[in-house]
Amino acid sequence: METSIPQRLAWVAVDWGSSNLRAWALADGGEVLAEVEAARGMLDLAPADYEPALLAAIGDWLPVEGRTPVLVCGMAGARQGWREAPYRPVPRALDALAQGAARPDTEDARLDVHLLPGLCQGGEAGGFDVMRGEETQLAGLAALEPGVSGPVCLPGTHAKWATLQAGRVERFHTFMTGELYRLLAERSVLAHSLGEDDLADSACREAFTTAVTEVVAAPEAFTRQLFGLRAMDLLDEALPSGEARGAVLAARLSGLAIGLELAGACRGLDDAQRVRLIGGEALCRRYALALSALGHESEIIANQRAVLAGLGLARAALDHD
Amino acid sequence: METSIPQRLAWVAVDWGSSNLRAWALADGGEVLAEVEAARGMLDLAPADYEPALLAAIGDWLPVEGRTPVLVCGMAGARQGWREAPYRPVPRALDALAQGAARPDTEDARLDVHLLPGLCQGGEAGGFDVMRGEETQLAGLAALEPGVSGPVCLPGTHAKWATLQAGRVERFHTFMTGELYRLLAERSVLAHSLGEDDLADSACREAFTTAVTEVVAAPEAFTRQLFGLRAMDLLDEALPSGEARGAVLAARLSGLAIGLELAGACRGLDDAQRVRLIGGEALCRRYALALSALGHESEIIANQRAVLAGLGLARAALDHD
Repeated sequence: METSIPQRLAWVAVDWGSSNLRAWALADGGEVLAEVEAARGMLDLAPADYEPALLAAIGDWLPVEGRTPVLVCGMAGARQGWREAPYRPVPRALDALAQGAARPDTEDARLDVHLLPGLCQGGEAGGFDVMRGEETQLAGLAALEPGVSGPVCLPGTHAKWATLQAGRVERFHTFMTGELYRLLAERSVLAHSLGEDDLADSACREAFTTAVTEVVAAPEAFTRQLFGLRAMDLLDEALPSGEARGAVLAARLSGLAIGLELAGACRGLDDAQRVRLIGGEALCRRYALALSALGHESEIIANQRAVLAGLGLARAALDHD
Repeated sequence: METSIPQRLAWVAVDWGSSNLRAWALADGGEVLAEVEAARGMLDLAPADYEPALLAAIGDWLPVEGRTPVLVCGMAGARQGWREAPYRPVPRALDALAQGAARPDTEDARLDVHLLPGLCQGGEAGGFDVMRGEETQLAGLAALEPGVSGPVCLPGTHAKWATLQAGRVERFHTFMTGELYRLLAERSVLAHSLGEDDLADSACREAFTTAVTEVVAAPEAFTRQLFGLRAMDLLDEALPSGEARGAVLAARLSGLAIGLELAGACRGLDDAQRVRLIGGEALCRRYALALSALGHESEIIANQRAVLAGLGLARAALDHD
């Protein structure tokens, strides 16, 4: 199997983030021939480290002759990355991302690297904001559903909400939900009260959805509800004891954090608008549950499917240049 | 001066928190004869460590004969402290705190220690909540202004808002504002963008009050505004450069955090209600500026004045027992 990759390889897709990279070897019809993951990201790479890191990951896939297109999204194109692919302003058509790609020089002549740009938004256009990597997942959605319109959410450390209109990004907003949750769960006074939640458990599920609806009804009480978790742990005799207690409180914190995001992001959505969720399955299902508690339907698109479709769209655009 | 303290000492006031203690030697009329501070708090003391720590701080003040009342508020009375003085439920009269005091045994017969209780609130009575230490500052306010009514704010790591009615605490709420600010400023992605703010500077002041009014108008956008700080740092050409940039962004983060608290705490306050602020001067002035941006008047009562008056009230109650 390994030996046939160089013969069949058409291009390489890379999602290169702050702390790791994932790469896929693709045949011409889109078949995934191989994939690899490595813990090498922007935070620990200097510009000169990128080419060796890439070759360590994908070197075995490359045919000896010719140049192989390597399409890269994510932080490798940041100012602190391999080479900057400057942010492009919204509104922006999602099939045009390859136009802003940066093309770093490589010593290895087999590599034809394209670092895709991120998107930015000005103060008047909806508030200063940036994304780098998620635009490629949005492009993937546009490739899978040409002319797509509506709200799209990409949950994560810095969750993104984009409004698409006929395959264009009109505007987007970032919420610091995942990072906020982790700081509170791991480094605040709440750490003593929290365990691991499990939304398959009915008590956790109820604590989660109750928190979502409470914070959407009264977002101004958010920091009070945070301390309330600590007070509940001290005083609330209706809570289960032992591990179940920490699980329920963790579910409640997750509901408060995601609920505050939805309070902001869903304002102005009408109920008929289905929200598309792109990301890891467990987190997307958590968001789908929260959205459903607020009366919104949603649909989950897997991370990898969106990334490969988005990089594939950029690669197709190269062929037409 | 030192030698006369044991002759004139009437009682000792102690504010004993999670990480340090402050003690004052008091004469009968309330004159402060001496004060001391030590970095010994609940987090690093086992129950048996409290008496030696107290004697190390105040032993020199004690007359050889007789027992000296030592009135203590704060975490020394917590379950993980010296000896538990269980929380007393609200509503509660502030001149009755001494009734719930715990009296730990001491080996040194000169000590007559009273650990004052904190206050708690049930789920139906306004939401689960606890305070330990701040109730004594509120009692001090009631001693300084007998029959006091109205909203009182005690800014800090876990900011407290209490509603007083004729010298009673009717209800109270805790906001995790200070802890949230510190986590975001020191440990989130925002740490790279922030410096030290200075509200005497007009640009910082404006960034602070603008953030307060923005988050009060739209608290549901809080986590979006957080990431917006990062995006402003990357994109906003109207921001100053160098150190002034980090200062303005830090002022904005402080305004967002305090503003979210005020969005919750000031809901239902009418404009005529003056807010009393008890705490350290710099932080209270920051809150006063935020309140004033929202049209609320405030008055600052210094921490030490409130603590000493509150412990003095409890000591007077002992004399009447």
